[in-house]
Amino acid sequence: MSGLNDIIVARSTPPGKSALAVIRLSGPACIEKVSPFFPGLDLENKPARFAHFGKIFGKNGELIDEVVVLCFLGPRSFTGEDVVEISCHGSDFVVQRILEEFLSAGIRMAGPGEFTMRAFMNGKMDLARAEAVIDLIDSENRAQHLLAMDQMRGGFSKKIADLREQLIHFASLIELELDFGEEDVEFAERDDLKNTVSEINGFILRLMDSFRMGNALRKGVSTVIAGRPNAGKSTLLNALVEEDRALVSDIEGTTRDTIEEVITIEGVAFRLIDTAGIRDAGDVIEEMGIKKTMEKIASSAILLFIFDLSRTSPDQLKADLEKIELSEEMVRLVVGNKSDLVDQLEVKEYQKVAGGVNHFVSISAINNNGVEEVKKLLSRHFGISDKNKSDIILHNSRHFSALYNTSASLEKVLEGLSGNMPADLVAMDIRHAIHSLNEILGEGISSEDLLGSIFSRFCIGK
Amino acid sequence: MSGLNDIIVARSTPPGKSALAVIRLSGPACIEKVSPFFPGLDLENKPARFAHFGKIFGKNGELIDEVVVLCFLGPRSFTGEDVVEISCHGSDFVVQRILEEFLSAGIRMAGPGEFTMRAFMNGKMDLARAEAVIDLIDSENRAQHLLAMDQMRGGFSKKIADLREQLIHFASLIELELDFGEEDVEFAERDDLKNTVSEINGFILRLMDSFRMGNALRKGVSTVIAGRPNAGKSTLLNALVEEDRALVSDIEGTTRDTIEEVITIEGVAFRLIDTAGIRDAGDVIEEMGIKKTMEKIASSAILLFIFDLSRTSPDQLKADLEKIELSEEMVRLVVGNKSDLVDQLEVKEYQKVAGGVNHFVSISAINNNGVEEVKKLLSRHFGISDKNKSDIILHNSRHFSALYNTSASLEKVLEGLSGNMPADLVAMDIRHAIHSLNEILGEGISSEDLLGSIFSRFCIGK
Repeated sequence: MSGLNDIIVARSTPPGKSALAVIRLSGPACIEKVSPFFPGLDLENKPARFAHFGKIFGKNGELIDEVVVLCFLGPRSFTGEDVVEISCHGSDFVVQRILEEFLSAGIRMAGPGEFTMRAFMNGKMDLARAEAVIDLIDSENRAQHLLAMDQMRGGFSKKIADLREQLIHFASLIELELDFGEEDVEFAERDDLKNTVSEINGFILRLMDSFRMGNALRKGVSTVIAGRPNAGKSTLLNALVEEDRALVSDIEGTTRDTIEEVITIEGVAFRLIDTAGIRDAGDVIEEMGIKKTMEKIASSAILLFIFDLSRTSPDQLKADLEKIELSEEMVRLVVGNKSDLVDQLEVKEYQKVAGGVNHFVSISAINNNGVEEVKKLLSRHFGISDKNKSDIILHNSRHFSALYNTSASLEKVLEGLSGNMPADLVAMDIRHAIHSLNEILGEGISSEDLLGSIFSRFCIGK
Repeated sequence: MSGLNDIIVARSTPPGKSALAVIRLSGPACIEKVSPFFPGLDLENKPARFAHFGKIFGKNGELIDEVVVLCFLGPRSFTGEDVVEISCHGSDFVVQRILEEFLSAGIRMAGPGEFTMRAFMNGKMDLARAEAVIDLIDSENRAQHLLAMDQMRGGFSKKIADLREQLIHFASLIELELDFGEEDVEFAERDDLKNTVSEINGFILRLMDSFRMGNALRKGVSTVIAGRPNAGKSTLLNALVEEDRALVSDIEGTTRDTIEEVITIEGVAFRLIDTAGIRDAGDVIEEMGIKKTMEKIASSAILLFIFDLSRTSPDQLKADLEKIELSEEMVRLVVGNKSDLVDQLEVKEYQKVAGGVNHFVSISAINNNGVEEVKKLLSRHFGISDKNKSDIILHNSRHFSALYNTSASLEKVLEGLSGNMPADLVAMDIRHAIHSLNEILGEGISSEDLLGSIFSRFCIGK
């Protein structure tokens, strides 16, 4: 991608036969450049943002299409430059012909995301908001849509800018101290400073905590269904997806390979992963299956452990659960199946073993009893319906990594303040923290590589 | 499809991730209906045809997207009704959410072509021009594009309307005569009338003649390559498509099944059909192959007959050509192959047998010599480059059928005039002719079935 001095063009709508296709151009003087393709329309002298009916001709005088043209004058446009939008008939041949004419007039095809990159470079939006545009286009369910929309509206960017302001103010105090260093003046009360940095760092850590949730919402919450053979894993999976994808049988150890299904509960995607039963392995293949199951569990957000109520006492359950190693971030939900085979259920005992009321549910998967309760349990831990409108949920790994660096720098600052480190060293760490926050907003980023890798995720035409 | 009193909505761009998607609404008061989805924008009181930036909210207060909205006030709109166009981000989820909101507000999903049908019913365009819209969207090469564009511009409609005017004037003369029938007055000079009707009919017959060309251009010109075994059919096909799709070998009778390739010469698609060699059949399969070849030839627009110059005298060629029955409309082009194996070529003799300079070319397919000449030969008979801008080429079979009926009625009129039939019978035939012309323009068509079958070819959203 080259600079901002040329005119770019691209189709902004998907290929295929349709009523309309939209072709967009952006760049300095692009209205003047495009005007001759519409003889008689006098596009340059027509009001901007106004829909003009026009006929577009090729340079050999051939009528290509009857279209609607809209001009936007920079900076009041998406890219901040002059923009022309042409709505033509939705034929790939017509679109191709129009693009050919523009290309042979020296206009360049836009690269992926180049319109949005220009919007960013022209100060129309910060980098985090530009990234939200592609997240919005990629959104396939309510949770992804909500995350993208929140970020596009700029709440997250504003919060990051606020934090940066506080750190800049803080840095100025430290640097003032530095200027007068030889006079041994301390302008900034070190304890006050420590409190401020602690608070900022605490906020950043909480934001980083939300990444587990945000990442899961964005990619779909990976949910491993595990349990002893014949506990009803596949039956539960089927009941959840209301389809007969997993092979259900009465023979122990039927499900050898992991199967993935996606269900949406209250707008959140859960990727359900069925596993081979966990038990003392009978043969090599069995052993491999169990190893695979354990690996699947380790890389998931939720373990949905299912057991046979009719054959498992609370103590046995406890022993089984202890066999499965869980990472700190993982949520474990326990499902007691086959409640239909049990006369008296020791619900409280099982709840205690499972980790509380919000971690246990008893069902009868075969009768479709309690399956809705399982969905509610999943939704309670990874839901968006009770999300507070002002809650910021971090879901972009680039932002997570930048906040991680910010926090690391801030912890050095705290160390420095506690250890009475020289002000110039403390100031350096603060500048690092500020730099990391700037990366999120895209300020001071000069590297084409970084921008290139961010915008290459975009489709052409955006 | 119901009447014109409700508001319809549809996505006007293809599904898929992209920069933009366009949603279009049309119907009485649709701006007022849509306005509440953009709180604060006051869409009803904003200028029409002007691009407004707006936020679209669901009825539960959820922000769905940031969009650009354009309103068109009827009758100055595509459909002739009030129209709203919303450009949102190109996510299927976002489009779905917006459509859901509109549908739950009582707006109806548009049927295929319903926007264009409304344009027709509101008198924004006649039926032939409406049909050109879908032909334009379907166009995949320059020839199809040209035919659709010509028809959309209205030259064809105008010509049909002119013819109709002449017939209406003519009918009025005849009917005047009818009114005064008892007084035995002849207002219209019968010989003059006959000349007029003959001229009109002659024009219609020429238009019908162009249908062969128009239909071929529209669907691709079916071109059968035939000849004796080993004459070089597959080699020529390969040379034409510059690919190695057909199996080329030195063994006689290699190509048993017909193969179809499409090439585009000067914007016109030619569907090339390779065939089994024509010879005295050796076995049953061979015989079937030859029968199939003959069938293929019978249903094609061009027979490209190839023969081996080194093994075929002009007389032998004549005998071979006579074996192949051709329909009257078919163009036969003769290609003498393996010119590299011949010292002295009796070009004129072969030309004479083939039917003239424009029907014969000698090549050496294996050396790629003369292949361009074959293309020129094809293009000369089915080309668009020398098409006169005012030439009307009929390409719609509905129009062909209507003109056929018009001509049949006009021939009855001529008969009646010659046979001194009573004026009232002549007048009836003229009215039939006028009715058939009206069908092309869609005037006086009340049948929902006919309109339904025409517009069902359209995509939804157009």
